[in-house]
Amino acid sequence: MTRLNVTQKLIGSHLVGGSMTAGQEIALRIDQTLTQDATGTMVMLELEALGLNRVRTHTSVQYVDHNLLQTDERNMADHLFLRSACHRFGVWFSKPGNGVAHPVHMQRFGVPGASLLGSDSHTCAAGSLGMLAVGVGGLEVAMAMAGQPLNLTMPEVWGVRLTGALPPWVSAKDVILEMLRRHGVSGGRGRIIEYHGPGLAALSAMDRHVIANMGAELGATTTVFPADDQVLAFLTTEGRADDFVELLADPDAGYDVEDEIDLARLEPLIVTPSSPGNVVPVREVAGKEVHQVVIGSSANPGLRDFAVVAAILAGRQAHPQVSVDVNPTSRQILADLTGMGATLDLIKAGARLHQTGCMGCIGMGQAPAVGRNSLRTVPRNFPGRSGTKEDSVWLCSPETAAAAALTGTITDPRTLPELLGIDHPVLSLPDRSTVTEAVFEPPLSPADARQIELVKATSIGALPEFDPLPDVLNAPVMIKVGDNVSTDEILPAGSRVLPFRSDIARLAEFTFAQIDERYAERAREARQHIIVGGANYGQGSSREHAVIAPRYLGLRAVIAKSYARIHWQNLANFGVLALEFTDPQDYDRVSAGDRLFLPELRVETEAGNEILVHNETTGAQFLVRHRLSPRQVAMVLAGGQIPLVKATAGV
Amino acid sequence: MTRLNVTQKLIGSHLVGGSMTAGQEIALRIDQTLTQDATGTMVMLELEALGLNRVRTHTSVQYVDHNLLQTDERNMADHLFLRSACHRFGVWFSKPGNGVAHPVHMQRFGVPGASLLGSDSHTCAAGSLGMLAVGVGGLEVAMAMAGQPLNLTMPEVWGVRLTGALPPWVSAKDVILEMLRRHGVSGGRGRIIEYHGPGLAALSAMDRHVIANMGAELGATTTVFPADDQVLAFLTTEGRADDFVELLADPDAGYDVEDEIDLARLEPLIVTPSSPGNVVPVREVAGKEVHQVVIGSSANPGLRDFAVVAAILAGRQAHPQVSVDVNPTSRQILADLTGMGATLDLIKAGARLHQTGCMGCIGMGQAPAVGRNSLRTVPRNFPGRSGTKEDSVWLCSPETAAAAALTGTITDPRTLPELLGIDHPVLSLPDRSTVTEAVFEPPLSPADARQIELVKATSIGALPEFDPLPDVLNAPVMIKVGDNVSTDEILPAGSRVLPFRSDIARLAEFTFAQIDERYAERAREARQHIIVGGANYGQGSSREHAVIAPRYLGLRAVIAKSYARIHWQNLANFGVLALEFTDPQDYDRVSAGDRLFLPELRVETEAGNEILVHNETTGAQFLVRHRLSPRQVAMVLAGGQIPLVKATAGV
Repeated sequence: MTRLNVTQKLIGSHLVGGSMTAGQEIALRIDQTLTQDATGTMVMLELEALGLNRVRTHTSVQYVDHNLLQTDERNMADHLFLRSACHRFGVWFSKPGNGVAHPVHMQRFGVPGASLLGSDSHTCAAGSLGMLAVGVGGLEVAMAMAGQPLNLTMPEVWGVRLTGALPPWVSAKDVILEMLRRHGVSGGRGRIIEYHGPGLAALSAMDRHVIANMGAELGATTTVFPADDQVLAFLTTEGRADDFVELLADPDAGYDVEDEIDLARLEPLIVTPSSPGNVVPVREVAGKEVHQVVIGSSANPGLRDFAVVAAILAGRQAHPQVSVDVNPTSRQILADLTGMGATLDLIKAGARLHQTGCMGCIGMGQAPAVGRNSLRTVPRNFPGRSGTKEDSVWLCSPETAAAAALTGTITDPRTLPELLGIDHPVLSLPDRSTVTEAVFEPPLSPADARQIELVKATSIGALPEFDPLPDVLNAPVMIKVGDNVSTDEILPAGSRVLPFRSDIARLAEFTFAQIDERYAERAREARQHIIVGGANYGQGSSREHAVIAPRYLGLRAVIAKSYARIHWQNLANFGVLALEFTDPQDYDRVSAGDRLFLPELRVETEAGNEILVHNETTGAQFLVRHRLSPRQVAMVLAGGQIPLVKATAGV
Repeated sequence: MTRLNVTQKLIGSHLVGGSMTAGQEIALRIDQTLTQDATGTMVMLELEALGLNRVRTHTSVQYVDHNLLQTDERNMADHLFLRSACHRFGVWFSKPGNGVAHPVHMQRFGVPGASLLGSDSHTCAAGSLGMLAVGVGGLEVAMAMAGQPLNLTMPEVWGVRLTGALPPWVSAKDVILEMLRRHGVSGGRGRIIEYHGPGLAALSAMDRHVIANMGAELGATTTVFPADDQVLAFLTTEGRADDFVELLADPDAGYDVEDEIDLARLEPLIVTPSSPGNVVPVREVAGKEVHQVVIGSSANPGLRDFAVVAAILAGRQAHPQVSVDVNPTSRQILADLTGMGATLDLIKAGARLHQTGCMGCIGMGQAPAVGRNSLRTVPRNFPGRSGTKEDSVWLCSPETAAAAALTGTITDPRTLPELLGIDHPVLSLPDRSTVTEAVFEPPLSPADARQIELVKATSIGALPEFDPLPDVLNAPVMIKVGDNVSTDEILPAGSRVLPFRSDIARLAEFTFAQIDERYAERAREARQHIIVGGANYGQGSSREHAVIAPRYLGLRAVIAKSYARIHWQNLANFGVLALEFTDPQDYDRVSAGDRLFLPELRVETEAGNEILVHNETTGAQFLVRHRLSPRQVAMVLAGGQIPLVKATAGV
């Protein structure tokens, strides 16, 4: 009998097509979905376009955690639309103020052994409970809500054995930062990371959430932990012990790739500006001036992550130069934190307590001044994501953030005992969480749901209709970008842009706005265009808007060295052909503004052949190819998933 | 011996010029100043332009309460600039997160018998402690910080005798709404309101703050309460009993105008959209659907105002349709609220707890959806102030707001016992406040202060230089507006505009943007222009930007039926001539676009004569006049206060 790891058990129990061989396309049954507001309005418009009557998943939940600032009427209009769509389609609605999708979902809906698809790149955080949780573009979530399986290239399984125990002042965030230090932002591409080994025993489910969450920053398909005693303890605290199912790797199960971290040898780490891959020990950058500390987000969402900061700050005052911005991740965690007295400690120490939600993590407020160092416990520091174009954002653990809050400089938290006489905090967390389920609205009955009209303010647009891939493409390269360009750069988030997420026509104006303010205007003039990218094109957030918006402006093909997984699928979903340079060196043979000619595009794409590209501007020629499955090819030829569904059976 | 009221005692003890006869210009010594960030950056630039070395007041405090969303780098740049300016000029600095200027000032710095000048129209709230507290434009605060007296037209004193005691479910907000119901938004112009009588005994200092604060909405110069046992009790709670000085009206002191309210006969009142003067009983509008409830602001700032909402919501759930947005007014009040368990009650009931500050009150987030009713405990509901152009904002007491939070409809709170079995809450508030003074930075020593350089990011502009009044004016009417136009309409606040408050050149683009999007462009083309207004022109916020911005665009004169006090002075401060129609009916003889010719403008202005205006477009002629004092005339002729100071002695 084969000895199976946890990943194989999870995939095996959900496999409805293909076989578990790395590189093969597989199809997986989806039990649960989550959507958040910044991607969810589009998902609901897609369900409407698909003509869905009622979701076919076991549980689908819509969260509102991104667009909370409400600087004009659009945010609340979105909230009202989402609530009506939940009522219409049979989806749970989590009110604004309930908190960030990932920790809330884990606390209220997470079930070991289940599969979860989410239109947010950090959906993988639920791997902390022994779930198979994958972040994808909104349209794939919509298809899953309609009962369709998830199609996925079977990843390699990367076993990371943890040994030892974390020293004082070192916490879960330092584990994932160590992974990023070793492997960089594309080290996990095409892989599922599975943690195992004796070091797991002392890592709580919320610690594992921290590690699983930022697996997204490694580019991994997802991260998986076993469902063991720590998961049982977590579910018991949540009053859901009955939902526990043990899920362990078979003894001596193997992995495609192996790695090991001795937790005892870790030290406090920090990400320097402006990529999650730039990791150094805190001590190497100690002493630099700090003007802001931001606590919160799905990367350090647990009660523990706030309580430890409160314990360090208790009875002291934040440095006068530092703005200490605290973003509680959920209503429940804020209630627990308040109940144990830690909220009061934070307030008295000078922290600014913000509303629960993503907030500063996605540039929804809390933008730092130009060039002033901001230390954050969040998962990402892509340039400008904070809301400030020339920002200087660092990523670190709550302990390291708290140390800087007190000293006004980057400070290794291990020096706090000597520096300020602060003992390493020993936390006493409540045995039972403050469960406030009443603020969720459950799905309506099918009969009631059918009566519901979607509430659409004028700021809620319609999904644009997209035409099939042309036979021949002759179009200019509208922009050429380097390696690791994130979806934050393709289509920014933040308070200026997110309010338009429900209206593609207006949103499209912001495409590539951070790199080239005239992109939208030039693209409209050209009618159709091509993008040239480097390696790991489209990393980061799962936002499908980063495809829909340029597609709306005439994007037909991208030619890149390689792609981040979610963005690659999103391109196919909306009928954009994702091509790769056969020889990556040919990247240098094409410039922005060059006119490219791709004859026989449809025929060659369908055949799966290499395609010869004629650079009409330089006279050069080079080969490109795609890695699409026949299913994805059909999608691209049809102009995207929705035209394909409409042309065939429907949902 | 004359029997004096409290107002006369306060003015008499600060009088350094003129005599206490209503309508005469008087000069008052200023003991304290407050500035907030949205007006304070300009005040600090003015101090710099004036060449001030160190403030000459007893106490000057800079708060940061308006620009807290930080959607880009500008807000934090302002905070850093303000902190450096406080260090430079000898001013207390209250960090972002400490809370709204008025309640914080009252709690930490308020002293009975002192005078306070503030660059915020709600500065009058400190009248609750028996202070003479006046809201003015920033430049007058700057002059006071430089040691100059406040010049003011001596108001009438309006004695309002309170009798009886408030019934259950009726609170201080209903008292000031009753005043607005009776007298409207200009009922207090040219008056100081002094409350007296047996009904005062049961009104706490914070209740009085509620009433004094919204005296601004009546257009009153300020509001005054005696410093009696309730004030002593308040200062004792704040740990400042030593600061108490009794200040009572002499027995049988008289008033220029008399009024009386029997508190026992009041009922819950509500302001309908979109002016604070539209007051009706709650019962008359009960049943209308509500989508948002906003709790907070300087109008209902006290611990009691939050605790009563928490008590009503405790153990219950907010209606699923209602977003309950709670804006704690200060760090101290949030600490007290948290310490007594009420914060936890609010969180569990489904409220969204926002950072401390003005927030939704000034359109800094929390914008409602178009046409959806939003019930707020804030002082103002001018059109669009919420951030939503077509908003529907109502103003009410915390009790009325809490009732709507539970029912999802406008609900008379007196029906709650029957409707939901809720008893009228009996609150038990702490005897001692949680004082966290350490988050204030005190002024530096003069020696240290001299070393400080102002921290100016590129988003901090310079104060524009303005030229003297021309001899002759021949200019078009750029815009003609109706009665009661507020400074919110002249120059909006809100998250889109406030970040530019430190940069007049960019801010000016938003002048009249809500009424005429092309105003700025057209004004620039015309080089100089005139505005025609109705009655009570420039009511509301004290922002001097509502003068500086149009002045920057070429505004030289306004012709209106009458003016709100602060705006009228701001016009003079920046060299704009405020003219009134001699015959108000002549308002109808001029239209937007007409070209007006005012020959001999300087000569006639200096002489104080009526001025003949030639409407060159229609051929009509009409008379206008000004009510400026010789001091103000000198200012206007010089091009404003700063050119005048520079041309003469300096500060």
